[in-house]
This record gives sequence, structure tokens and C-alpha cells, in this order.
Amino acid sequence: MNDKQPLGAFIEDGQRYRLTSPTELPNADAFLWNAAMMIQATCRGYATAQFMQPGPAKYAHGPTLAAKTFMQPEHPYFAHHAGRFFYVKDHHTNTLWSAPYEPTRMPLDEFRFEPGLNDLRWVLRKDDLEVTLVLSLADDHPVECWRVSVTNHSTHARQIGLTPYFPVGYASWMNQSGDYDTKLNAVIARCVTPYQKLEDYPKQKHFKDLTFFAADKKPQSWSARLQAFEGEGGLHNPDALQTGTLDNQAAIYECPACIMNFEATLKAGATEQWTFLFGPAEHETEIAERLAELLPEGKIEQPLEQQRQQLKDTLSNTCIDSPDTNLNAVLNHWLPRQLMYHGQSQRLTTDPQTRNYLQDAMGMAYLDANQTRTALTTALQQQQSSGQMPDGILLEGATELTYINRIPHTDHGIWVILCLQAYLNESGDAGLLNKMLPFADGSEASIAEHVDRSLDWLLADRNEQGLSYIQQGDWCDPMNMVGPNGIGVSGWLTQALAVALNQWAELCRQTGRQTQADAYTTAYNEQSTIINLHLWDGDWFIRGITDERRRFGTKDDDEGQIFLNTQAWALMAGVASSDRQPRLIASVQERLQTPHGPMLCAPAFTRMHEDIGRVTQKFPGTGENGSVYNHAALFWSAGLFAAGENERAWQVIRDLWAFDDDERFLRRGQLPIYVPNYFRGAWHQFPETAGRSSRLFNTGTVAWAYRLFVENLLGLTGTLNGVRVTPFLPKDWPVFSAKRTFRGAHIELTVKRDGSLTADTLRCNDEIVDGFELNDLQAGQTYRLDYRVSG
Amino acid sequence: MNDKQPLGAFIEDGQRYRLTSPTELPNADAFLWNAAMMIQATCRGYATAQFMQPGPAKYAHGPTLAAKTFMQPEHPYFAHHAGRFFYVKDHHTNTLWSAPYEPTRMPLDEFRFEPGLNDLRWVLRKDDLEVTLVLSLADDHPVECWRVSVTNHSTHARQIGLTPYFPVGYASWMNQSGDYDTKLNAVIARCVTPYQKLEDYPKQKHFKDLTFFAADKKPQSWSARLQAFEGEGGLHNPDALQTGTLDNQAAIYECPACIMNFEATLKAGATEQWTFLFGPAEHETEIAERLAELLPEGKIEQPLEQQRQQLKDTLSNTCIDSPDTNLNAVLNHWLPRQLMYHGQSQRLTTDPQTRNYLQDAMGMAYLDANQTRTALTTALQQQQSSGQMPDGILLEGATELTYINRIPHTDHGIWVILCLQAYLNESGDAGLLNKMLPFADGSEASIAEHVDRSLDWLLADRNEQGLSYIQQGDWCDPMNMVGPNGIGVSGWLTQALAVALNQWAELCRQTGRQTQADAYTTAYNEQSTIINLHLWDGDWFIRGITDERRRFGTKDDDEGQIFLNTQAWALMAGVASSDRQPRLIASVQERLQTPHGPMLCAPAFTRMHEDIGRVTQKFPGTGENGSVYNHAALFWSAGLFAAGENERAWQVIRDLWAFDDDERFLRRGQLPIYVPNYFRGAWHQFPETAGRSSRLFNTGTVAWAYRLFVENLLGLTGTLNGVRVTPFLPKDWPVFSAKRTFRGAHIELTVKRDGSLTADTLRCNDEIVDGFELNDLQAGQTYRLDYRVSG
Repeated sequence: MNDKQPLGAFIEDGQRYRLTSPTELPNADAFLWNAAMMIQATCRGYATAQFMQPGPAKYAHGPTLAAKTFMQPEHPYFAHHAGRFFYVKDHHTNTLWSAPYEPTRMPLDEFRFEPGLNDLRWVLRKDDLEVTLVLSLADDHPVECWRVSVTNHSTHARQIGLTPYFPVGYASWMNQSGDYDTKLNAVIARCVTPYQKLEDYPKQKHFKDLTFFAADKKPQSWSARLQAFEGEGGLHNPDALQTGTLDNQAAIYECPACIMNFEATLKAGATEQWTFLFGPAEHETEIAERLAELLPEGKIEQPLEQQRQQLKDTLSNTCIDSPDTNLNAVLNHWLPRQLMYHGQSQRLTTDPQTRNYLQDAMGMAYLDANQTRTALTTALQQQQSSGQMPDGILLEGATELTYINRIPHTDHGIWVILCLQAYLNESGDAGLLNKMLPFADGSEASIAEHVDRSLDWLLADRNEQGLSYIQQGDWCDPMNMVGPNGIGVSGWLTQALAVALNQWAELCRQTGRQTQADAYTTAYNEQSTIINLHLWDGDWFIRGITDERRRFGTKDDDEGQIFLNTQAWALMAGVASSDRQPRLIASVQERLQTPHGPMLCAPAFTRMHEDIGRVTQKFPGTGENGSVYNHAALFWSAGLFAAGENERAWQVIRDLWAFDDDERFLRRGQLPIYVPNYFRGAWHQFPETAGRSSRLFNTGTVAWAYRLFVENLLGLTGTLNGVRVTPFLPKDWPVFSAKRTFRGAHIELTVKRDGSLTADTLRCNDEIVDGFELNDLQAGQTYRLDYRVSG
Repeated sequence: MNDKQPLGAFIEDGQRYRLTSPTELPNADAFLWNAAMMIQATCRGYATAQFMQPGPAKYAHGPTLAAKTFMQPEHPYFAHHAGRFFYVKDHHTNTLWSAPYEPTRMPLDEFRFEPGLNDLRWVLRKDDLEVTLVLSLADDHPVECWRVSVTNHSTHARQIGLTPYFPVGYASWMNQSGDYDTKLNAVIARCVTPYQKLEDYPKQKHFKDLTFFAADKKPQSWSARLQAFEGEGGLHNPDALQTGTLDNQAAIYECPACIMNFEATLKAGATEQWTFLFGPAEHETEIAERLAELLPEGKIEQPLEQQRQQLKDTLSNTCIDSPDTNLNAVLNHWLPRQLMYHGQSQRLTTDPQTRNYLQDAMGMAYLDANQTRTALTTALQQQQSSGQMPDGILLEGATELTYINRIPHTDHGIWVILCLQAYLNESGDAGLLNKMLPFADGSEASIAEHVDRSLDWLLADRNEQGLSYIQQGDWCDPMNMVGPNGIGVSGWLTQALAVALNQWAELCRQTGRQTQADAYTTAYNEQSTIINLHLWDGDWFIRGITDERRRFGTKDDDEGQIFLNTQAWALMAGVASSDRQPRLIASVQERLQTPHGPMLCAPAFTRMHEDIGRVTQKFPGTGENGSVYNHAALFWSAGLFAAGENERAWQVIRDLWAFDDDERFLRRGQLPIYVPNYFRGAWHQFPETAGRSSRLFNTGTVAWAYRLFVENLLGLTGTLNGVRVTPFLPKDWPVFSAKRTFRGAHIELTVKRDGSLTADTLRCNDEIVDGFELNDLQAGQTYRLDYRVSG
């Protein structure tokens, strides 16, 4: 660790993070995205980037033909992994090092990895040479923009060589090469995306099979040959950098790399700058266009400025000022930024799972409700007239469901209401319910009726006891062998249906659909009885019943005894009696809680259970097999809030970010600038690795975290007519304040503890508000809310 | 290069090859196989191994989830590629090096890579320590057997550490780990082969998802953690080897590696030995079984001895003694060994392409005709009663066609006759033609009728001019856009049909099916006319006519002007007139010939031609796009032999192996112990890389090379009654002799040039044989054949 600076800290008013060691959290990373791409880069220079054409594709690969698959948890890096590296050679001392750290791994005098909201920055220093790297993205195209500067902080002139090395890797066995294009001043790698079937050709014909690396200055020499560059020296000490100049040779059906050498003499105090562009393209003309747009002096900053402004505008909608400054940084910048990423990128898939799509849209309601409206209507147009929701939503350009969306799951209808509720909370747009919308198979109906049918389908899809069939999965995708024979049921889905019925009944009531309100209320009450009758196990709710009619998630199981979700949703559904509620909370506390959050189940499965399925084959403590699966952790938080266990609920959210706890921070191995899909669980079984981050930033956690932040911490829940104000003040905070623009009105909230009060009070512009509800807010007006917490 | 020894040479009577540099041909490799697996290992220690369960699978991977695909041409290696490495630490000098060469790449005092017919051996020496590695395979199981010895050649005692490092890599995102099993004295890596579909589970349930590395001695320490082992030092200088002992830690959902440390003190002159086993297993019981079978003293040699004997028995069938001793080594050992590999392993697929399956079986006829009989009946039972042959042959355990076999090709019927002819030549078993055999769709017929129907189907599948439709490919798999609309035709297939008709007509005549003989002779004659009428382009035959009725493979094309196959098969079919024959030979010589053999087409395509297809998208000079595609080179050789151009024909075969030509040897980058799929072509377009080997040893070349060796060089062609003797004596050989066991008779052939003769003569046991044909050979008898070449 660095003596002068902490290992990690937010800087620049929380809008940037600083990591000062390349070795303590070697896989610490950050990500950027734009309309066309995403890049995840580690502090050491490894990177994984994807762009859409229309499916996700790569323009820089590892040295082996990789499986076409989703992003992997705990993605491993290795010497020849794709990355963006800059060798620095000091010709006087003959020292070779590399920025940001790989591949030479030469210890540096100073290392700062500083990801910001819209760029990634590194500041490196060795022997009085300072190298700064800044990566940002173009606006609508998949282009990485690199600004690199080298400053000589010594008192004498220095002669240096800067050699960017951007490997392109193994793109294709059909055709791969690389060469330098004098006119474009770019090394261009070419390939033909492999295929065999004739029908794939038209789909691939216009793929961006070129990868270009362009510079704003002419290199002294270049190479496109990875293996020749590396030679016997290895990437940590490439042969080519021993000789002074690169070989100026093309890669001819070999793994290509983009390598250029720039020689510079820097006077004392002088700085030299370079601009580089890296990305995919279909042909040279497209490259020329990108270069013209981005390479001239000052051009590269334009999209970055625009992105900064756009992000700032969106995030300024809501902000908190609490005594926890780190948390402020997260809630004001990084959490909504990650949410925007989900809403804008759709996780870089053309067929998001319906469940993911609707939850991401649910979160987006708090940033941009229009986008949620679009998502809802997109999804409901792909509903069957039977009410069944599809497993995935086909977005523009997509023609078929892929991966997990080919496996039948039964829960997708649930998320319609949860998403709709958030949309109505934020927009008050009850008129949407009357909008007519077609079904996938022809007829049309109002959105309200679409929702009715989705619930009716779920109500019909139950067994004789009223328990919901699971088929090959519910929220838990890999729980695929509980119900394939049409008998097994999901305890969780039975509860989730109660949550949905309850919410919809209330919405129907509020929108004058009394008949439906009554029917769904009745159904909800029945569901409550069913849950308590068939799913209670003494100290918690079981997870389900298999095709062989075996109850699982019970005390009698030797592993997978207790599942978090059936406790969380029991609370959310409000079906646990006053007797059962504390018992199930105590059970979770005792059996699932860890310093990183609650585990999804415990003990994690250590062997295949053929009546539960694939989830039991996952490594114990990873993914759905007993990790701290943050999405589910926030279900638990939502359940605790619903049960009035606010302090506990809040702690679950707070545990998403470990700032102040070195041990947790190092274990996680990830910067607190995004919430990962999971932290390793199996805390009792594998204490060595418990807490390690998956480093996957695609996760439903984000939408829930933001919703809970707005509606439960700030306590600003929209109603059809206004807003309900029920903030929560964590016990270690004396006060917080927040600002929120809501339907155009400016809310300024202060929440303070007041020991003299026996009940909470709310004042708006100094006047007492009875019932904690404001109605008829006027756009443009400012509402100063003063909330006093009693006791 | 080594001063004392040549860079590469055959040793041990040609049964082993020696390479003395790890850097001159860095990717030089060799392969072993057994009933269950194949391993291809480079001289530097990288390895690719596959076993069957029933599809091909791996038990050691790279560090990234790899695409499930066929073996790639010119497979690239990189630091973290799968391999088998042994770090050697000299504690006195504190030197760390590695055997065989990677990952430290430390220069050695002596390096000898010595692949034998049944094992791979390395002898390495540094600072008077000699390390010998010998890899052999178990018999029926996928187990690598490693015998390692370290000898101290210095005059004082040495303390050394030997650390085998066998990376297992990224096997699965679902579940991967590694741990040491005390009882088995093995590091065992575990995974769950990834899947999502429920129906895949039963297929994978019994997969060998364990990888074990077991030793015959207890290690001092061990590790299963790749990244921790490597640390910041990198694989060339792992952190773990700085400290003296490994961490004894399991890999917990991380890329596992099998690493053990053995410390030994060696007196002057002393040797220490270890035995290691490495391979996949389903469970610990299976590992225990393998260990019991192979680990006890002396056990490991048993399967190896058995394999040696079996190979020797098979290869002793035919041998040549020519003035070209290197060539003797190849023809007597390495070529038939590679042929056996094809026949035994079916190229490690469960659904070989029909074309490959039948040609490999054709070659096997010369080693073991029974196997060819089995292959023929297996294939013909999968024929449709329409006569159509399927694109692939499903072998035991296979249920569906994969990869290229899903693309409709029209040529598969051709190979039935070519294979059958070789079988009858070797066996004389004309009775097979009467054997009744079912079709895939129900009815049954004699094998003769199966063949009739396959030809009739091919005759029916022609256009109004009599040219054969190509659909989405013929022999040239990626020629997929010539005829998808049902119009385009294959010039080659039209000629191949003539070859088949001619052979079958002759066989029918010999077996008393005169009606069919007459009909197919007529068809052949018509085919000859058709070919000459529609396919001649002035100096050569065109390759085909596209769906848009464009002739291609013509003088008017700017690339892909001339294709080798339509010249080769014109000669094989005997359809080129005495005027056209020398013109097409001259055209091939001028436009296709290179120092590595003839190119498949020229100029190689440099851009997509949408009416020809995928072949034009392959990198110029690789694969079917203008490489020296050895399979086709031997068609050319066969054509030249058929045309009486024996000397040229022979040179094509001889060019498969470059022993005596350093420049060609280095360019190829491959040892001459196997024939590769291709050498890079595009000789005029990319002279830098022309000649580079694909290092793929699955190739139809082998069967043809062996057939031409037996029938054209030795000139021993079986007939239904005996053998025809028409040897060929290359111009630079004064003499050669050969032995061959044929239908049980022992033939001892001597071929000598005799300037006094005006015509060739043949004596058998000193008696003149008229007509160069021996009949009624008696099994057990010896026939001394004395062939004198005139002029």
C-alpha cells in the first residue's frame, strides 16, 4: 500500500474513486458504456469490451477462440488476456515499465487508478516520469478514446519510447490479419467472424470485423504481429522492445495486435501528449469517419462533455446529504449511474429476460419514467392473450430467444405489476391503464386488462392446493428440476403472487376498478391462507415442493435448509403472522446473515440434488447456490422495510458497499463504485473466500436499491395524487437532508431526530402535514419538508 | 541451433525423431493416441489433449472458457495455454528453469525433443543436471503416464526441487475447484461441465469432470491455486517458487492447477525417478482404479510395450528399403502410424464426415482390410434407399450430425466406390458385394445394389447438361454459395462421377454384372463428353458454374482462376485428350506449383465472392483458399500417376516431407513425423508465410499417400485373383527393395534400373512373369519379385 494515500477513497466530490495499489485488489475494475458498447477495465490494464451488432460482439479477444457466452462471474485474467497497455522505455536508464501496470508488472513510484463517472483515469509515476491515461468513449459508436500524456518531472531532458500495445487476439479461424494503414495512420486488424451455415452469412455480412488503433501522431515504427513482438522475452519483456524499433510487419493469418512505437525527447518539466482511438469498424471508410470526428485537436472532449452533462442532468434529480459522505457519493452518483447503465444498455443483450427487463425498467422509473412506460408497453405487446408473459423480451434487431430464455420459467408475470407500480408512483399516469395494446397472438386489450390476464394466468397456473407451479425455474433460473413434470411448485412464486395480487388490488381500487379490486383482494387473502397452511416449516417458510412431492428448504434437509427468498417475500406479502414474523427474521439472522449480507440459502449445496436441479451443481457460495446474492438481499431489505424492521433493512443496503472496513474491502476485491451480482457466500463452509465479489455489474440489485433509497430511506413514495413522506433515519445519523425533483416539483427534505417528540411530524414549508401525504404538487414549486423523527 | 547435433533428424532406425532446439521450430509437435484419447504436445511443453465421452472433451484448458469447436489450423500457444511443465530449482545456485522449456524459457545446455512412435521423450540438460521426460498413454483409458528422471552429472551432490505444474484451466463457470487428496496422493480438480438445458443433464451426468494428477511419491508440498502460485512473478518466475514450499491450498471456485513440489538430494552420478499420471475421471473410485493399474513399479511400461508390439505388428506388413533413408523412416513407420491413428480414432469425432470416413477406411485397407469392411457396411447402412449418402456417419453413441455435417453436400456417394475398390484390391473379397444390407429408411439390398443406387443418385442429381449439382458444397466444404438455389454445378463432382462410374463399371465387369458394367461404361463415356464440352477453358478445366450461371475457375477471373482438383480428377477420370492433358499439366506447373507442393487454387481469393461462398472468405493461402492442401495435392499425384507422369507424381508425394532442406523445414515449422492438412499457399501473394504448416494431423492426405505408396511406388495392386506388379523407380534411385505381406503371401520385391533393357521385366522366384500380374498367391509362401526397369 501507498504510505501517502489510502488504498481506496472517493475523490472529486464523490464523482471519482482512487485506488492506489495495482496489487492489493488486482482485479479491481470500472466500466464505461455508451449507446453502442460497454468496456470493463481492471486497474492493471486488462479489459473486456463488447459492442452490439445487434448481438454482443468483441473487437479484442484473448489468444484462443473463446466460447460465445454471457459475462462470467469472477472473470479471471492472465498475461495474454485482452487489455490496453503502454510500454514506457527510458532510454537513458534502459528501464522498461508499463502503464497502467501489466504486462511488465514493474513496481511504480506512484499508482493511481481513478475511475470517474464518464472516464477511467490512471496516473502512474516512475523515476520522475509521469504517465496519465484517460479513457472515454465516443457517443453513438463503439470507439475508445485514449488520451495519454507523459511528463518529465526530473531536472534533465529524458529520451523515452512509448509503445501502446493493444492486442486483438484470436478473432477467427477463417481469416485474421493485421497491417498498418499509412493513410489512416492506424494499425487495422481484420477478420471474418466464423460461421458455417449459409443462413448466417447475411446476418454477419455487415459485421464490424475490423479492429483499428489510430493515433494522432505518426509512429516511428509499428507491428501487427503479436508473437513476433513478444518473442522469447515474453510479454513482460518483449523481444521487440530490446531492439529499439518495431518490425513494421503485418500479421498474416496470425493473432494480430496493434502496436506502435513513439520516440520522444522531453525537456525537464515538459509534457508530450497523444490521442489514440480503438474500436471495431466495418470498413476503412467508417474508420476514416470516426477519425475525422474524434481525432482533431479538442474533438475527443466533446462527446465526453456531453456525456458528463447528460449524466449530471439525470442524476441531479435526486440527491442526499447525509453524515456518511461515502454513502452520499454512492447514492448520488454511482448507484443511479449503474441504474442508467442497465436502462440504457439492456445489459448488452437483444433479448433481456422478462424478469430483468421489467425490474431494470422499474428502477429507471425513478430517473426517467418515460423509459419505464416504453418498456412496459414493449413487454406487454409480447404477452400472450392467455396472459402468459414470455421468458425474454425481443428488442429491436432480435429474432429469437437465447440462452436461459429458452428454458420455461413461470414467474415473468409477477414483474409486470412491480414495474407498473413504480411507474405509477413516479408518474401518476393512471391513464396508461386504459391504453389499448395488442397481444403477441393477435387480439388487443387495455393495459389494465393485460395485467389482469397476467395475474389470472398465474392464478390458473397453480396446483389443487393453490401453490404455483415452477416448471423449469422461477426467479431462481437454475432451479430447473423441481417441476419439469408439472407437479413441483415454488413456495417463492406462491408468495410473489400474493405480493402482486395485493399491489394490483390496491391499484384497481385507486383507479376505480372496484370489481377487480374485490376479486384480487379475495384472491390475495386466499393466497395468504395457502402460504401459511402449506409452506410453513416451524421457523421459516420452505422453498418449494418437488415433482416427487418432497418439501425442500426445510429443517430436515442436510443442505439448502433455508432460503432467503421465501422469508423476504413472506414479509413483502404481509402474510407472516405476528408470531411467525419474528421467528423467520431470527432464522435468517442466525442461519443466513454474514458480514457481507444475507446468503441466498444455507448450507450451500455441495452435491447434485436431482429433484432441485442445476442450482445445486453450482459451486457452493457462488451465484444462486448460497452466495450473498445482492438482488435477493434487497428483496430481504424490502421485506424488512415492509415489516417495519427499518434499521435491519437499512443495514442490508449499507452492506452493499464496504468503504470503511479494510478487511471487507480487500476480501471483496472490488471498488465500491458498483454493486456486483453477488459476493461469495457459504460463509461457514468456505470462510477463506466468503465475501469475494463476482465483479459482474449486471444485476437486478440496482433497481431495487434505488427504489428503496427513494421510497424507504428518503421515504418519498409517489401516489396517484401526490407523494407520501415517510423517511427513515438510520440510528447512527442525527440528520440528513435530500433534494428531489418529483413530477416537476422541487422537494427539499430535512430529516432530524428530535428526542422531545413522541410521534414523528412532518412540516411542509413550515406547516404541519397530517397523514404524511402531500397532494396536488405544482411543477416548478419548491416544497421544504421538515421531517422530525421522534424518540 | 546446436553445434553438436543437427537441428532435426530421425534416430533409432527411423522410429524416433530428434529436435535439438526449442526455439527454431517453437511449435514443433508430436501426437499420441489410444482407444480413448489423443494428445498433441509441442516441444516446449504446451499440449492439447482430447478424450471421448462420447463427444470430444478436454481435461486441461486454457484460462478462459473456450469455444467448443474443431481443432484449429495453426493453433497458437501462449503463456497460460494448457501444457505439462516441470520447474527445476537448483538450490545451490538458486537457478530456476523448466522442462521441457516453457514457462521459464531458460536457455538449456542441451535440448532434445524425441517423439517416438508410442511415446514422447525429452532430454534436457542444464548445469550438469539432466532431466528426462517420457510421456506415454494408458491403453483403454484417457490417462497420461509421465516418467520423469533427474540425473546429477556433476561431481558433487546437488539439492534440487522438482515442481510439476499441470494447469487445468477454466473448465466451467458453474463449478470449478481443486484440492489435494491425501489417500490418492493426487491433486484433483473438479468441475461441472456447463449446461442450461434440462435435456443436457442426463447426457452430462456421467461426464469425467474430475482431472487428477497423481504421483508415485509423496510431495513435500502442493497447491491447486493457479493465480496464487503465479503471483506477481508470472509463470516464468512464479511467486510460489521463491519461498521454497507451496501453500498446500485448495482452489475454491478458481482456475485450478495441479502443482506438487518434490525436494531431492542427488549424489554425484545419482538419478531420482518419479511417475505421474494425469487425466480425467468421473469419481475418486475411477482414479483409484487407474492408480492401481498404472502406478506400481513397472506397471506403466506394460501398456506401452503392448502398444509398441501392436503397432510393430501392423506396420511390419509393408516396408521399403530405398536409398532415401529418411523416406524409409516415413513410409515404414510414420505414415502408416498416422493412418492407423485415423482408422482407430475416427479423428476424435462421433460423426465423421462421410467423405472422410470412407477415405480413412480406404487407407486402412492396406493395414487392416477387415476394418475397411466394417466401415463400408456401417456407412452403407446409413444410406437412403434413394441412393443418397448422408453428410456424416453416426458412430456408436452419436445421435446427431454436428458442425459441417449439417450443411448439404452432394459428393458423399463418390467415396463409396473409391473405398470399396481399395478394399477389394486388398482383400479380393468380391463376395461382399452380395451381402444384404438395410438402408436407413427401411428396405434392404445387396451391397452391389447399394453402390448402384449411390451412382444412380449422383447421375440423377445433374442438370440438363449432365453437370453435377453442388448445393452447398462438394469435396470443398466451404464452397457453399455456388449452388444453394439448385442451379450451380460442380465441375469437380462431374469429373469425380466419371472416375466412380469408370471404376464401378470395371468392378461390375470383373464380378459378372455385365448389364451394369455396360450401363455404367456408357454413362462414363457420356460423362467424358460432357466434361470436355462444358468444362474446358482453353488451358484447363473450370471449377464450376454458379447459380447465376457464371463459370468460375477460368482465365477471365481475377482470382481463383485455376483450381487443382478439376485438373487432378480429369487425369484420374482419363477424360483429358492427348492435346488437353499436357496443357493442363503445364498450367498447374506454371500457376499452382510451389516448393511445398501444388496450391489448391490461384490466385487465392482476397475478398468475398458471394456466388462462390465461404471459401473465398478464408485467409488467402490457408485451408481451401489456395493453400498447399495436401489431400488435393495427392489427388494431383494420383492423377499424374494415372496419366503416366510418374516422376512428377512421385515428386508431389516426396514434397510432403522436407527433411533435407533447412529452409523448407524451418518454414514449415513442423517435424516430418506427420503429414499436415495443409502448408500455406498463396506463394506469390504472401511469400513470407508460404509453406507454414497447419499442424493439423487429421487429413485425408494420409490414406491417399499410403495407397499411392503401395500401389504406385511399390506398384503392388491387388486384383480379384492376385496382384499386379508395376513399381515405379524414381529417377534418382538406382534401386529399391520392399517387403509386403499380401493376403498371407510374403512378397519380396526388388526394383532395379537396367540400362540394357528396352522394356521392363518382372521375374518371380527367378521366372519371367508375363503381363506383370501374379495370380493364385498362396498364403505362407514367399514370392521373390525381381523387377527391372528399362532404359
